Amino acid sequence: MVERRMTINFGAGPAALPKPVLQQIQSEFLDYQGEGMSILEMSHRTPAFDRIISSAEERVRTLAGVGPEWAVLFMQGGGTLQFSAVPMNLVADKSRALDYVVTGQWSRKAAEEAQRLGFNVRIHEMNGTGLSDEGFSRLKDTIHADEDPFYVYYCDNETIDGIEMPNSEYISKILDLDARKTILISDMSSNFLSRPMDMKRFGLIFATAQKNIGPAGVTIVLVRRDLLASNETALPKMLDYRLFAKEASLYNTPPVFAIYVTELVLAWLQETFHGSLAKVDDFSKSKGALLYEAIDGSHGKMMNSVPRPFRSRMNIVWQYANSADEKTFMAQASAARMVQLKGHRSVGGMRASLYNAITLQETKELAQLLRDP
Amino acid sequence: MVERRMTINFGAGPAALPKPVLQQIQSEFLDYQGEGMSILEMSHRTPAFDRIISSAEERVRTLAGVGPEWAVLFMQGGGTLQFSAVPMNLVADKSRALDYVVTGQWSRKAAEEAQRLGFNVRIHEMNGTGLSDEGFSRLKDTIHADEDPFYVYYCDNETIDGIEMPNSEYISKILDLDARKTILISDMSSNFLSRPMDMKRFGLIFATAQKNIGPAGVTIVLVRRDLLASNETALPKMLDYRLFAKEASLYNTPPVFAIYVTELVLAWLQETFHGSLAKVDDFSKSKGALLYEAIDGSHGKMMNSVPRPFRSRMNIVWQYANSADEKTFMAQASAARMVQLKGHRSVGGMRASLYNAITLQETKELAQLLRDP
Repeated sequence: MVERRMTINFGAGPAALPKPVLQQIQSEFLDYQGEGMSILEMSHRTPAFDRIISSAEERVRTLAGVGPEWAVLFMQGGGTLQFSAVPMNLVADKSRALDYVVTGQWSRKAAEEAQRLGFNVRIHEMNGTGLSDEGFSRLKDTIHADEDPFYVYYCDNETIDGIEMPNSEYISKILDLDARKTILISDMSSNFLSRPMDMKRFGLIFATAQKNIGPAGVTIVLVRRDLLASNETALPKMLDYRLFAKEASLYNTPPVFAIYVTELVLAWLQETFHGSLAKVDDFSKSKGALLYEAIDGSHGKMMNSVPRPFRSRMNIVWQYANSADEKTFMAQASAARMVQLKGHRSVGGMRASLYNAITLQETKELAQLLRDP
Repeated sequence: MVERRMTINFGAGPAALPKPVLQQIQSEFLDYQGEGMSILEMSHRTPAFDRIISSAEERVRTLAGVGPEWAVLFMQGGGTLQFSAVPMNLVADKSRALDYVVTGQWSRKAAEEAQRLGFNVRIHEMNGTGLSDEGFSRLKDTIHADEDPFYVYYCDNETIDGIEMPNSEYISKILDLDARKTILISDMSSNFLSRPMDMKRFGLIFATAQKNIGPAGVTIVLVRRDLLASNETALPKMLDYRLFAKEASLYNTPPVFAIYVTELVLAWLQETFHGSLAKVDDFSKSKGALLYEAIDGSHGKMMNSVPRPFRSRMNIVWQYANSADEKTFMAQASAARMVQLKGHRSVGGMRASLYNAITLQETKELAQLLRDP
């Protein structure tokens, strides 16, 4: 095999992980912490794994700032399982209207899944001029017109479309939602733990690990415990929030390795940013700004059409006006071993994902290449 | 940290994995096959991962001996998800009787889950004298008495109870099932790919990886494609066999790392046993016999009460007549760094699991300790 140097991986997920974490995993891979076996061989009923999953939960609680009134669950099945589990767990009366704010492909998938499962879904398309304070103000009138919504669902960051809410409290504030009356549900798969969250505004948040916090195979769900009492429908057990809450995610064998890696990434995050999500946000904004400046300063060579307040810090998308420029860039990026820069196959163009593990230096190298390929 | 030597891990799952596989994972962990990134960072939409999952599927097909009329699925959620998915996918008419042969705790859990989800489950307890050719012959008369069953479900190896069917065709033959009329479903989580399977007798087989074939986090399902056409109920997507079959298990992000490890274990299995499951069976029987001989030759000091033809090759359970002997054994085992020898918390006693990665030499060391603690 030809030896090649390491890449800079701008993939949208599964995505780059912090190098120190990967090195630690490798170093203790055959013998986890003197236990005499690989973490891959370790039972989920051992004290060692109990320490891992308890620590992972505690780190999520500390970072998110949630107390015992919240359940923190480690589930399988990715966002797709959550698209089913959210309405199936929370909604006992299928006639109740559920409001889905659709800003991109992931919120659309969630809405369509709830619809397919027979729930009364109201889809609110927020694109073009809708993606603005004015657009959301009109939406506010719509959703409060008849009855207060049972829940409002949205996706905080759309990886494919490069659209992110300006801050985590934006939807709650602009739609004037009262957390005591309306359950606010957020898919934070691609920006979880990248900025502060005002948790008192939410009823449920979920995040698949394979963006900012770990490898594919585990999904973290934060749900207010008072929401878990109401639905007596028999759900398949692997979708049942109440069962996962009651059994502390250990009803059956969990994805041991994925939870182990996630715990290490969370520890790295706390240490690197001194436990401050505001610092992670500053870091993310700085990185995003480097690429947006290069795109906006390109005199029309590159374009990003997302309204500025809604530009994602996590997934920066752009198109070249001239396909020759795209080819030149891709060739240069490839030569520099920058990879996974193609946009999602459904939309084309370019995309660079800047999750927590992507360094400022790596982002600068990409910005430099954008300016001068 | 105090340096301790490696253990011999007799755990029931997650369980020991082949040392050469663990070493390969470690060696290529930071840079997978020259791709310039860790396998943990790799997108499931890359050619490299496509080769991994295609190879894993091909190896399962070759080892199990199934053609294109079978779908091979890589799912999440373990056996618990399958307990829900089996009836939800296959049974359109909830009034149809479903026969569950209950030989231990895992088949019981499956039956109870189907019942809880509203299916018409008939539980057949097979224990004590029932666990015999005569017992199964009586069961045959029962299940064929009114109508032919829609499906018959059983667990081929019960890890907690140490009970295994004498061979993979046993249930089909002794109940005189016609595969064209009755769907035979087998939970082979703990003995999959440890002996030949007569696949023409089955409609569906599933196996969680964390016993014989990989780490926790992925479950392999083999299902005859003709069974996937009948049910038009809207299922949650992560339980939907048809969706997984149509999308080759890549509808959403799969558990990349777990599938990668599984592919390596399958390659190791094919190489070590020259592709012959009959050889794996011989190997398993030899290992099991070493422990059963020690137990049976202990003059009543140790006991295993499973009827001989149904003794598991995979999970050998025993009790000490005298608790002092149990303590002595446990102390000696601990000193020899043999671990995970306690029986399941629900039944107590001792248990040694001898999955494919446990060597003959390791088994001999345990047998020696049983004879002379």
